[in-house]
Amino acid sequence: MKLFHVAGSCSLATRIALEEAGADYETVKVDFASGEQTKPEYLAINPKGRVPALATDKGVLTENVALLAYIAQTHPAKNLAPLDDAFAFAKMQSFNAYLSSTVHVNHSHKGRGYRWASEESSFADMKRKVPETMAASFDLIDREMLVGPWVMGEQFTVADCYLYTLTRWLEGDGVDVARFPKVADHMRRMAERPSVKAALA
Amino acid sequence: MKLFHVAGSCSLATRIALEEAGADYETVKVDFASGEQTKPEYLAINPKGRVPALATDKGVLTENVALLAYIAQTHPAKNLAPLDDAFAFAKMQSFNAYLSSTVHVNHSHKGRGYRWASEESSFADMKRKVPETMAASFDLIDREMLVGPWVMGEQFTVADCYLYTLTRWLEGDGVDVARFPKVADHMRRMAERPSVKAALA
Ligand SMILES: N[C@@H](CCC(=O)N[C@@H](CS)C(=O)NCC(=O)O)C(=O)O
Ligand SMILES: N[C@@H](CCC(=O)N[C@@H](CS)C(=O)NCC(=O)O)C(=O)O
Repeated sequence: MKLFHVAGSCSLATRIALEEAGADYETVKVDFASGEQTKPEYLAINPKGRVPALATDKGVLTENVALLAYIAQTHPAKNLAPLDDAFAFAKMQSFNAYLSSTVHVNHSHKGRGYRWASEESSFADMKRKVPETMAASFDLIDREMLVGPWVMGEQFTVADCYLYTLTRWLEGDGVDVARFPKVADHMRRMAERPSVKAALA
Repeated sequence: MKLFHVAGSCSLATRIALEEAGADYETVKVDFASGEQTKPEYLAINPKGRVPALATDKGVLTENVALLAYIAQTHPAKNLAPLDDAFAFAKMQSFNAYLSSTVHVNHSHKGRGYRWASEESSFADMKRKVPETMAASFDLIDREMLVGPWVMGEQFTVADCYLYTLTRWLEGDGVDVARFPKVADHMRRMAERPSVKAALA
């Protein structure tokens, strides 16, 4: 498998999960600085022009929510998701869907406001609100969603890879992770995992 | 099960899927006009203050992406997802994740700009861009993602319930669905299904 990724971007979630799974994969860097994700070569791989994209022998998969579940399902021995319990699996997927549809989207309003507006004044306005929206999302995660020590409780799952990836954005978004004790503890535990060390190396 | 929903909102996707599954459920209307989703009673059910929320005997589930897969997994005889093929399941989940994290988010910038900005001028700017972002998303769906006649090809899946729900928003968003022939055909086919008729009744 080939993971198309960018360091520090949301593709880190899928990369950490591949490491946790012990998957056989290589990485291909996409160069955002030169706009490589908007060029025909990359659009032929992922017409959305985004990372992550995972090329498998059956075809290309995109979207962290789908990729994380796929990695867990195709490496069942690694126990990276509650695969035999539909309710628990849905809880995990709900957590991941919240990260993707709400938390990631909040963050994107800092540097990608042009996706949803056209005026510089709107971009500046959006940017100013990011610390507030990110803090509100992480407050909800800390109070209501993260069971602890891992997202789902005692079982480490792919949701942990995703949460860690977005938690790392907080500092740059002007939010002190120390405000969220369970998330801060989660971040520390994650940083110690060999998978994370390998993915960040 | 109890589905907390609002007519015309994204919760329609989950409602259609419950109908397709022949699930045993009742519906509870949430009154957006009076802001019921922001009141303590509703936040006790779904602290995100959103619909859909599905109360099951094991607890409450939220997020369409998770709910749709859950309904398919718990009603396997209805064949609402490729449950025995991890790659195809991931393709379906990727489609749903795109609807949730990109298409729905594009649409929300019409009436919910205050989530991501604070100035009236930004809200107006965001609103003006919605026809463009919705058209771009549906163009991609039409060209690259919707296999036809159903999202996944010959097999009807829960992704069809979700696509139909967001396609219905196009007209209000100032986009003519006729620009997207496969999506327009999909919309017509969906409108004829008993599940859709029941969910809209
Ligand atoms: N919903 C997608 C979002 C993917 C996404 O937006 N990735 C960003 C990096 S964090 C990207 O590729 N941005 C490039 C661009 O906007 O040009 C997912 O979760 O995989
Ligand atoms: N990512 C969520 C989004 C849920 C959502 O935003 N629902 C809207 C209705 S379409 C809502 O409840 N809005 C109420 C509000 O913003 O106050 C999902 O797909 O279930």
